[in-house]
Amino acid sequence: MKDSLRIALAQFDFPVGAVEDNAARIIEMIGEASDEYGADIVVFPELAISGYPPEDLLLRPAFLARCEAALQRIAASVPADIVAIVGWPEATGGALYNAASVLRDGAIVCTRRKHELPNYAVFDERRYFDVDPHAEPCVFDVHGVPVGLLVCEDLWFTEPLADAVGAGAQLVLVPNASPFERGKHGQRDALLARASRESGAALVYLNMVGGQDALVFDGASVVADANGTVHPTAAAFTDQWLVLEYDTAARSFMPLQWMDDGDESVDALAWRAVTRGIADYCAKNGFSKVWLGLSGGMDSALALALAVDALGADNVTAVRLPSRYTSGLSNDLAAEQCAALGVRLETISIEPAFEGLLQALAPMFEGHPADATEENLQSRARGAIMMALSNKFGGLLLTTGNKSEYAVGYATIYGDMCGGYAPLKDLYKTEVYGLAKWRNTVGGAPVIPPAVIARPPSAELREDQTDQDSLPAYDVLDGILYRYVDQEQSRDEIVAAGYAAEVVDRVLRLVRTSEWKRHQAAPGPKVSRRAFGRERRYPISNRFEG
Amino acid sequence: MKDSLRIALAQFDFPVGAVEDNAARIIEMIGEASDEYGADIVVFPELAISGYPPEDLLLRPAFLARCEAALQRIAASVPADIVAIVGWPEATGGALYNAASVLRDGAIVCTRRKHELPNYAVFDERRYFDVDPHAEPCVFDVHGVPVGLLVCEDLWFTEPLADAVGAGAQLVLVPNASPFERGKHGQRDALLARASRESGAALVYLNMVGGQDALVFDGASVVADANGTVHPTAAAFTDQWLVLEYDTAARSFMPLQWMDDGDESVDALAWRAVTRGIADYCAKNGFSKVWLGLSGGMDSALALALAVDALGADNVTAVRLPSRYTSGLSNDLAAEQCAALGVRLETISIEPAFEGLLQALAPMFEGHPADATEENLQSRARGAIMMALSNKFGGLLLTTGNKSEYAVGYATIYGDMCGGYAPLKDLYKTEVYGLAKWRNTVGGAPVIPPAVIARPPSAELREDQTDQDSLPAYDVLDGILYRYVDQEQSRDEIVAAGYAAEVVDRVLRLVRTSEWKRHQAAPGPKVSRRAFGRERRYPISNRFEG
Repeated sequence: MKDSLRIALAQFDFPVGAVEDNAARIIEMIGEASDEYGADIVVFPELAISGYPPEDLLLRPAFLARCEAALQRIAASVPADIVAIVGWPEATGGALYNAASVLRDGAIVCTRRKHELPNYAVFDERRYFDVDPHAEPCVFDVHGVPVGLLVCEDLWFTEPLADAVGAGAQLVLVPNASPFERGKHGQRDALLARASRESGAALVYLNMVGGQDALVFDGASVVADANGTVHPTAAAFTDQWLVLEYDTAARSFMPLQWMDDGDESVDALAWRAVTRGIADYCAKNGFSKVWLGLSGGMDSALALALAVDALGADNVTAVRLPSRYTSGLSNDLAAEQCAALGVRLETISIEPAFEGLLQALAPMFEGHPADATEENLQSRARGAIMMALSNKFGGLLLTTGNKSEYAVGYATIYGDMCGGYAPLKDLYKTEVYGLAKWRNTVGGAPVIPPAVIARPPSAELREDQTDQDSLPAYDVLDGILYRYVDQEQSRDEIVAAGYAAEVVDRVLRLVRTSEWKRHQAAPGPKVSRRAFGRERRYPISNRFEG
Repeated sequence: MKDSLRIALAQFDFPVGAVEDNAARIIEMIGEASDEYGADIVVFPELAISGYPPEDLLLRPAFLARCEAALQRIAASVPADIVAIVGWPEATGGALYNAASVLRDGAIVCTRRKHELPNYAVFDERRYFDVDPHAEPCVFDVHGVPVGLLVCEDLWFTEPLADAVGAGAQLVLVPNASPFERGKHGQRDALLARASRESGAALVYLNMVGGQDALVFDGASVVADANGTVHPTAAAFTDQWLVLEYDTAARSFMPLQWMDDGDESVDALAWRAVTRGIADYCAKNGFSKVWLGLSGGMDSALALALAVDALGADNVTAVRLPSRYTSGLSNDLAAEQCAALGVRLETISIEPAFEGLLQALAPMFEGHPADATEENLQSRARGAIMMALSNKFGGLLLTTGNKSEYAVGYATIYGDMCGGYAPLKDLYKTEVYGLAKWRNTVGGAPVIPPAVIARPPSAELREDQTDQDSLPAYDVLDGILYRYVDQEQSRDEIVAAGYAAEVVDRVLRLVRTSEWKRHQAAPGPKVSRRAFGRERRYPISNRFEG
């Protein structure tokens, strides 16, 4: 047995569907791990060949065939002096496995078929993958060290690790594709500490990094010595090589190249999740530039700051879209923020468009008093104008609604909901304020004018409107929503917690009746433990009120 | 053993989430089955208490508690002279089962826990339900006849039926919630014939009926004698009591009240699926009236005819939205159809709105030639106007795009894609034509002006435009799409089938790059075996081209 092994972890983004590119990069990276880092083992994330989650691409025979061909090409390229762990969808004998293969010297040494298939929250693995009831633990020798291999969710159950250790593994590698959500790191580190201590195996947890539609994989890879010591987490949301020396006698790690996190606060991680989400959604869908409507209010101000951090000020254009109801303060604050951030600002009055729509509708609306219809028309004029800018000049339109608005439908569908990506989708309004305040404390001058944070929120769709004309105060609203949406509390539980019954009933009714809008909403990065979209799948037609 | 049993099947709609109402109706119907039909057994569909599919309502503890309380109330109400089979989500000991209980004389006789949980296509049952590995077959006595119980998917596997028959069952009841798709009846009847013949048990297949968002349950219940004889299917999409006499010696059925289908042609069933989908989406979401934009083209003409058949002419308002590019023929044909159908027609020129939008954008668009942007603006002006009518006067906006358009993104998001329900969403353009022609052959004068069917399709967003300026001929387009989307064929397979490579590549690229629009699309009724939406879950960020 060698005294030590050198392990390189590829904490990088492997985009969904980019089979050939991913394979080419993996081949190149195996060479890099060997030549530059002298690694004995190089580990790639779960399903690195296909990207994660490939969703219904996994139902395409041609996709699976290309993934297998890629795996074979990679295997053929691996020299004798390094072992590579590569994740791929393994289609065989009518079954499909979420597999990770051990490659060495041009061949597949063994393959681990994921045993525990998550099918909850954002995961649908049982839609695609089978469990192999006859799977043997995958334990292989590296310079005399017996090394085990598990895939992601396998680690969260006792049996797979016990089986690997039972088969002799002293060091267990775990490639993952685990999306960010607030608070997960603590849970995961506690699991790693316990699992390593109880099993007596050293554990390597490598996670995918990068944004994929509504998910953002945070990397934040981590290792645990066999005595239960968990090392500092690798910098989240950062593409990097992580290189470790593994001491075979002590079953412990010494990091050689390991950039860890400067600020792991909840706000810092949420900020980086959202900016990474924006950047990767743009990059993966062919956009280098974004547009957003800047109202002078809190949401669009925060979205602008996020977009600038994600893409750079030169790639962001803000547009003021004033109407007769827009206050001078709103226009001024929008200008102030753009000046501070160095962002190009355009101004397009919506009045001609709003007037044109009213004129078209005048014969039918005659005699009917103004109501929310006219408010929605302003929002839809703005949406049409912003989409026209995107259509004419290219660039993605960001939509700036927050989780509270998506929850109660306080947004105009086909109006301010227009856009391809929704950075604030999983942040309640109170969290939007918190994140804005946090960002202003980080480095240099405030990026969000303090007056934006201080003013009362208003949609400015009629005279002297504020959000609180229609909604409870946001701390009350968000308190109810958090209990109802994130915690699955019932109406009665929420009332028992001290919220007024009539307010609770009104909020819950709004949540229920706006489901159809959420079904037509843009994706946005998951930050919480219960994000709208693929993590909360509700019927539109639904009579349950509890 | 009694010579015969009388069986009543409740082929009705049990709306999702309407727990208390469903329970009250079930209690009432048990009485009706006993008093009016003299039934010994009454069967309700799968998950009749919760409705199907309840989706993430199943993650709410309060929902599950209310379902259990409902089941207990129903059980307590059942007299001694009838057995009731009632489906419900059974939460117990940290597990959740898709259960059907046998109720008699105020008590639960036994409960079948569904063993085969579909987790493919539109189904996500493993997200919610567990399999009970220790489940015994549920076989119970009714007047000396041993009766078995399976739930839906159980019937499609050999073991559950074999187990029930092994435990003595001569007659097996199968409550279902199986959504309509073209061609399923034939498959199902073949299965029933084989299963009954091979097992020697008589089979009762009762299916839910009614629209639930993108699904339409077709009822179309059916029974098979133990010798493999499959009886005629009950009328699809029809709420009705089905009453049978079961001959215990012959193990065969005699229908007593059994309305079967007049026209089971593919077109007739598709028509009824879509009209039922429209009617139930409206009813379940509080709409009695609908709006739709009527262009004088094929899609909106078919949608109008469907809406009228679904809701009645009095509940439908068509709106012509002409622009400078709208032909006189289009306006005339729209008027002709409304006159023929007795539908109210409004006309709103979009010119003021279009002009207003152009004027708002003029400073920024100066010097840039007109392109698709201006076409989209017309569509978005129409969308905003139609939504304003819905907002001001109530009523649901129908959106009239077809599957070919959704596939290639030949639709303006936030424009003609505006609306809450999309009747043609799962019909390719060639199928739209087919259905229109079929409908005109059914009863009386044509409901779609033949000239609408005959004219070349055009979006009329610029001078002399036709769809074929941008797209291949629809028979070619649909041929490629059917292979690619419905059959999962690869690019190379489609080319090998004789389609021009450059056309295939262009179409596939359009499908891939319009995924983001489909993610923001309204639901529409599933008709095919691979509908967009919950049945085809694709990443937006996706680099796979094969």
